[in-house]
Amino acid sequence: MTEFELIYKLINTQTVERSDVLTGIGDDCAVLAVPDGYSLAVSMDTLVSGVHFPDSASAFSVGYKSLAVNLSDLASTGAMPAWISLSLTMPVADENWIREFVSGIFQLASQYNVQLIGGDTCSGPLSISIQAHGFVKKPLLRSGARPDDLIYVSGHLGDSALGLRAYKAEENIAEGCLKRFNQPEPRIELGLWLTQVATSCIDISDGLVSDLGHICEKSCCGADIQMASIPLSDEFKAYFNQQPDYITAITFGDDYELCFTVNEQHSAAIDAYSNQSGLRLSCIGKIRSSGSVCFLDHDNKIITINNKGFEHFK
Amino acid sequence: MTEFELIYKLINTQTVERSDVLTGIGDDCAVLAVPDGYSLAVSMDTLVSGVHFPDSASAFSVGYKSLAVNLSDLASTGAMPAWISLSLTMPVADENWIREFVSGIFQLASQYNVQLIGGDTCSGPLSISIQAHGFVKKPLLRSGARPDDLIYVSGHLGDSALGLRAYKAEENIAEGCLKRFNQPEPRIELGLWLTQVATSCIDISDGLVSDLGHICEKSCCGADIQMASIPLSDEFKAYFNQQPDYITAITFGDDYELCFTVNEQHSAAIDAYSNQSGLRLSCIGKIRSSGSVCFLDHDNKIITINNKGFEHFK
Repeated sequence: MTEFELIYKLINTQTVERSDVLTGIGDDCAVLAVPDGYSLAVSMDTLVSGVHFPDSASAFSVGYKSLAVNLSDLASTGAMPAWISLSLTMPVADENWIREFVSGIFQLASQYNVQLIGGDTCSGPLSISIQAHGFVKKPLLRSGARPDDLIYVSGHLGDSALGLRAYKAEENIAEGCLKRFNQPEPRIELGLWLTQVATSCIDISDGLVSDLGHICEKSCCGADIQMASIPLSDEFKAYFNQQPDYITAITFGDDYELCFTVNEQHSAAIDAYSNQSGLRLSCIGKIRSSGSVCFLDHDNKIITINNKGFEHFK
Repeated sequence: MTEFELIYKLINTQTVERSDVLTGIGDDCAVLAVPDGYSLAVSMDTLVSGVHFPDSASAFSVGYKSLAVNLSDLASTGAMPAWISLSLTMPVADENWIREFVSGIFQLASQYNVQLIGGDTCSGPLSISIQAHGFVKKPLLRSGARPDDLIYVSGHLGDSALGLRAYKAEENIAEGCLKRFNQPEPRIELGLWLTQVATSCIDISDGLVSDLGHICEKSCCGADIQMASIPLSDEFKAYFNQQPDYITAITFGDDYELCFTVNEQHSAAIDAYSNQSGLRLSCIGKIRSSGSVCFLDHDNKIITINNKGFEHFK
């Protein structure tokens, strides 16, 4: 099968067709119309087999997750997703693998009305680069946190870390944790809503310690976090027999939840949004005017964190 | 060195700073302003070590070429380059390699006022994905060729094919051919000018046979090409002792010249542009209303072409 035939296979299974795609797949460039009054938000992430997902991960979940991590960046910017480009590098053109992979991408893409507009296929060790494009009027940045802002995270932290252990032949891993690892849910609706209230936002890809550290660095502030407020799922707590490993939950990453800051006056609105959407939003601490990110125990003593989250090339 | 420190190194050596980059590197997304009245042109290409460039290629030329092939796609669409995202996957974070690589990218980027707006660094086998963004009012497509349109190519074909042979320890390869392989020149100015006159355009990345085939397929037409009209450099002809290997010149690809079609009425304008710019533009044949791409010898007999150009996964 040739590169071109593969690309046509991708096209043929795509159901999303947007009117702002003036020229899609099949030319040297895609030609696209950004709506008046909006800026373009752009994110690019690469997933490498054996680094970002286990070699044994299913093609469907590799496709799904490759898109999810990019949409998560749009979510944390408060952008509405629109288009993606895909660069797929794989050792051999395995038709079944590609069909499943594409099906994983398109399932999530159709959920958010995202159209594949182009890309590239190469032979080489398995890796996937996706560039996601969205529209935003008032972007959420890392730099807007202010002293005394409340710090929130969505959903639960740590499930994805447990999910990965299922690949390492560890038993008693809940199905829900595996799904959180394989198919994280980008918090698009939350991000869009947060553009009205949040002062800063980031998605938790590298672990809360590291990612909240980025907010503090860009906002020139510190943070106090109550460790006991870190939201953990019932599955996570059950796995650890009610003695949960908080360090894993705040350092492993791969959660793709949003961490954001708001002025205290918005706390009621946050609770209302959480109730209405069914998405847990937990206040975990407060921004300080200086210092670093501190995690505190029940007695407000600082807990030493050694593993600062996922970084490549360590 | 961490992923983040590497990215900051990239930032610090960048000289281009565009006012339409509202938020650049350092947030989850870049936030960008497309000027009123323009569409966005987007292209993504991946280069894999050992597939698209020899493992022994210099970091500078790998960086330069990675950007050049993407800008070439913008050129063939008639777009003005603006922004790039970069995803760099490499086995170990080699600071010297990265400095040279980035220097190759930024040399070309500053020539076209292109700003790096974000990306990703991963550990894994060496590969580079770049997404290039540009602005276009009236895009050049593959689909606009009409019967009797004249077919042109810019520059010379085949030099890059010879350049690669220098990596295979072959002797007598002219320096110019090696440079054409390592640092192809994207034909941005030509593409911008062609938006006024061309009916279709493509860049020659996979070889003229294959790429002109795309124009014919998309435009529902055929083409007659006079093989003797294929533009060859003096270095190419000298290497073959005046018996040049035309098949290599039209099938190898990696030339990043533009192949375009125009109505005959514009032939004088093409000549004038060529004289004024110093860029050779050669009329190599004519569009037919049907059939395939035929290469003809001096007696107008069809030459059989077996190698139809570069495709992955063959």
